[in-house]
Formats: sequence, C-alpha cells, structure tokens
Amino acid sequence: MRRRLKLTLAYEGTAYAGWQAQPHGRTVQQVVEKALKRILGHPVRLIGASRTDAGAHAVGQVAHFDTGSPIPLTGLKKALNAVLPKDIAVHRVEEVDDHFHARFSAKSRTYRYEILNRPDPDPLLARRAYHVPQRLSVAAMRAAARVFRGRRDFSSVCLGSSGVHHPVRTVTSLRISRRGTRITMTITADGFLRGMIRMIVQALVDAGLGRSATPKAAPPHGLYLVKVKY
Amino acid sequence: MRRRLKLTLAYEGTAYAGWQAQPHGRTVQQVVEKALKRILGHPVRLIGASRTDAGAHAVGQVAHFDTGSPIPLTGLKKALNAVLPKDIAVHRVEEVDDHFHARFSAKSRTYRYEILNRPDPDPLLARRAYHVPQRLSVAAMRAAARVFRGRRDFSSVCLGSSGVHHPVRTVTSLRISRRGTRITMTITADGFLRGMIRMIVQALVDAGLGRSATPKAAPPHGLYLVKVKY
Repeated sequence: MRRRLKLTLAYEGTAYAGWQAQPHGRTVQQVVEKALKRILGHPVRLIGASRTDAGAHAVGQVAHFDTGSPIPLTGLKKALNAVLPKDIAVHRVEEVDDHFHARFSAKSRTYRYEILNRPDPDPLLARRAYHVPQRLSVAAMRAAARVFRGRRDFSSVCLGSSGVHHPVRTVTSLRISRRGTRITMTITADGFLRGMIRMIVQALVDAGLGRSATPKAAPPHGLYLVKVKY
Repeated sequence: MRRRLKLTLAYEGTAYAGWQAQPHGRTVQQVVEKALKRILGHPVRLIGASRTDAGAHAVGQVAHFDTGSPIPLTGLKKALNAVLPKDIAVHRVEEVDDHFHARFSAKSRTYRYEILNRPDPDPLLARRAYHVPQRLSVAAMRAAARVFRGRRDFSSVCLGSSGVHHPVRTVTSLRISRRGTRITMTITADGFLRGMIRMIVQALVDAGLGRSATPKAAPPHGLYLVKVKY
C-alpha cells in the first residue's frame, strides 16, 4: 500500500549547495533522497517546503515523499539518523494523507536571521551569523521594518525579480530583538520570493547603520528556516 | 627594538589538526604564524598556552611571540583579522615584558565541555557538543566529580600515560550544570595531562548513565578552551 510520509528535519547548511537538487554541488535534498533509497530499497522523490539557500540552515524544514514500504515510522527515523551525515537530522516522521503537499499545503513559513553585532568577529559564529562590526540601532531597524509588514508587492526585495509573475506576499510577523551582541530577526509569511528575507535583512541593517539602503542581500549563513505551518 | 606580544584568540577547531604545529595536517598555530609572517615580514615562532586537540575549540587561547616590528597593536589586530580565515579570530593584542611566557607563566586554565542530552541529534551542534541520547543524571555526575577535585595524581585519566613523569595536577574547580537539553562541565586547573579533560568527561557521562566507567575519552568537538590566567 502506498503511503505518504512527512519528515521534519534540521541541517547545518555550510557543506551544502542549498536544499534543492541540482546537477552540480551536493544538496540536502539529494543526500536525504539517497539515504531514503538505501533504507527503503526504491528511489524516492522528496518535496521540500522551502528551497533554502546554499549555506543557510534549518531547524524545522518539512518534506514529503511516497513509499510502498511498510517500514514503521520510528524505525525509519532511527535508520535515517544512523545513515545521514551528522549535519542533517530527522526530528519527526509522520504518516499524512494523500492530499498533503509539503510545499503547496504550507500556510506559513517562519525564518530567523542571526546577526553578530560587535567589533570583533566570532569564529564560532563565522558560518552561523552575519557579522556587522558597527553598532546597529535596533530602534532604526524596527522603524524601517514597518514597510515590510502586511500584504504587498515584494518585487523590490527579490533577487532576479524579472521572472516573478506573482510578487505579492503577506508578511504576518516581523520582529527584531537584541540580546547582548546578538540581533535576531524573526519573520513569518505565507511565502517568500527568492532572496526576499536576505534583501529585507540588508535593508534593515542599512537602516540600523543610518545609511541609505543598498539593493544587496545579506549573506545566507545567518538564515535559519524555523517552522512551516500547515 | 625587540618586543614580546601576547595574543588572545578564538577558533572553531573543526577544520584543524589541533593547535600545535606538526608535519601533517593544518594546525591553528601554523595558520596564525603564516598570517603573522605575512604582516610582519619575518618568520614568527608562536608559543600557545594550551595544545588544544584536533577538533576542539577555543574562545580564549593565549599565545606569545617576539618581533622587531614597530607595528601598532591595534593595526596588528586589524591586519590579523583581515588575513586570518573566518574560523580564527584575534580578540586582543598586548605588549608584555620579556619574562612573560604563554605556556609557563600560566597560573590556571579553564575549559568548558558541552553535552547535548536528548534522544535526537542536533546538526547545528554536530561539531560543537557531545551527543548523549540517553538521559544523564546530573546528580550522579556531580557525585562522581568529587574524586577529580583537588591536588592528586591524574595518570588514570591521561591518554598515553606511559611518558608522564609528573602526573600531579590541582583541579581548583569542576562544575556541572544543566540547562534544558544542554549539560555543561566547567573545569579549572593549574594544568592538564593529555586527554585528561575528555577522560574525566567520559567518566562523568558513564556515572550519569549509571554504568561503570570505561577508560575512554569523550570526543574533542565538545571541548572549549575558555580562559588562561596569569
């Protein structure tokens, strides 16, 4: 009997060319597909909720696939974590109905972006946070964040926007907080255009430094996919 | 005029074969020496306070070297952080007197060891913490820690102990704390034998699991050199 299974997974994206399978470079999707094939004995097509960028991380990516294997869910989870490299882990395996689609059924996605805001770099955060040496004004960042909330056309903060036919998204939440030398931005939307979050982050950083915005994307290594809601 | 300079540095040890220069493998000492040579224009011999293991990290390693260069300290720090790879950073450059020796003048060294204690692995901690899936009893770990405090012969927790002529060390502090799924051990001593901290950690983990101790070292990637006192 054919079953549709939903995976919730986490990964440290440093060693990967992003989520999405591609001819060149090792991607998270390909590595998990290979592990599933090895365990289940048949090729698997894995559909992810979000195509995270090369170098970006995930604590709550969601993906689905179909299988005829009767393998128990807990056994599959254990086998996957035994086979997968240490920078990818599966936190949950669930059976879902046929209509569930990791990408199209998603109601919202939440990402976190981490900034290290102090003069000195921190080697332990080199691939985990965007290092901004100059002091950022969180108040100025919050003021600038207003224009990115709500339902609107986000094509001004999209990488390679020429191909986007439907640039309207709804940002339901955008919060910025500071704790010591760390600044965290948390953003939730029904969906994101390509590069949208990193373009917004760079715009907020420019605001926080009191300079005019440069149409540039903040680096991917500060970005974490936190949660996908269905 | 010859000056002795003291560096305080941090590194993410994953990509390195430890601190100490060696014929095979890239070490932190070699990479920093190369950066100093490039900036100062002469070869530099760097002496570190602690020879951290391959894969272990540092937030407060200390090292010294001699130079005839009149380069200002802040300029040297900036130049070093510009030249060094992102997994090594210099936090402080100070001029010290001729008698200062990073290794032999050290009065104490403090290390931290990080354990992730939950069933699921965490990819973001794969190279940062020791994953122990079974529940650890911190009370049992604390009880077991008593024998490792004070002035004593530590050759039972030393890797390759045959060559140690002076196995007596004084552990002035050894604390264990839990915060959610993370268990942190912090240990201070006048000095440590080879593998001593990791052997102690494994003994405490065995105690925390309620099983008899195996003479084994916990993995290096949970270990952080935190502070050297002079």
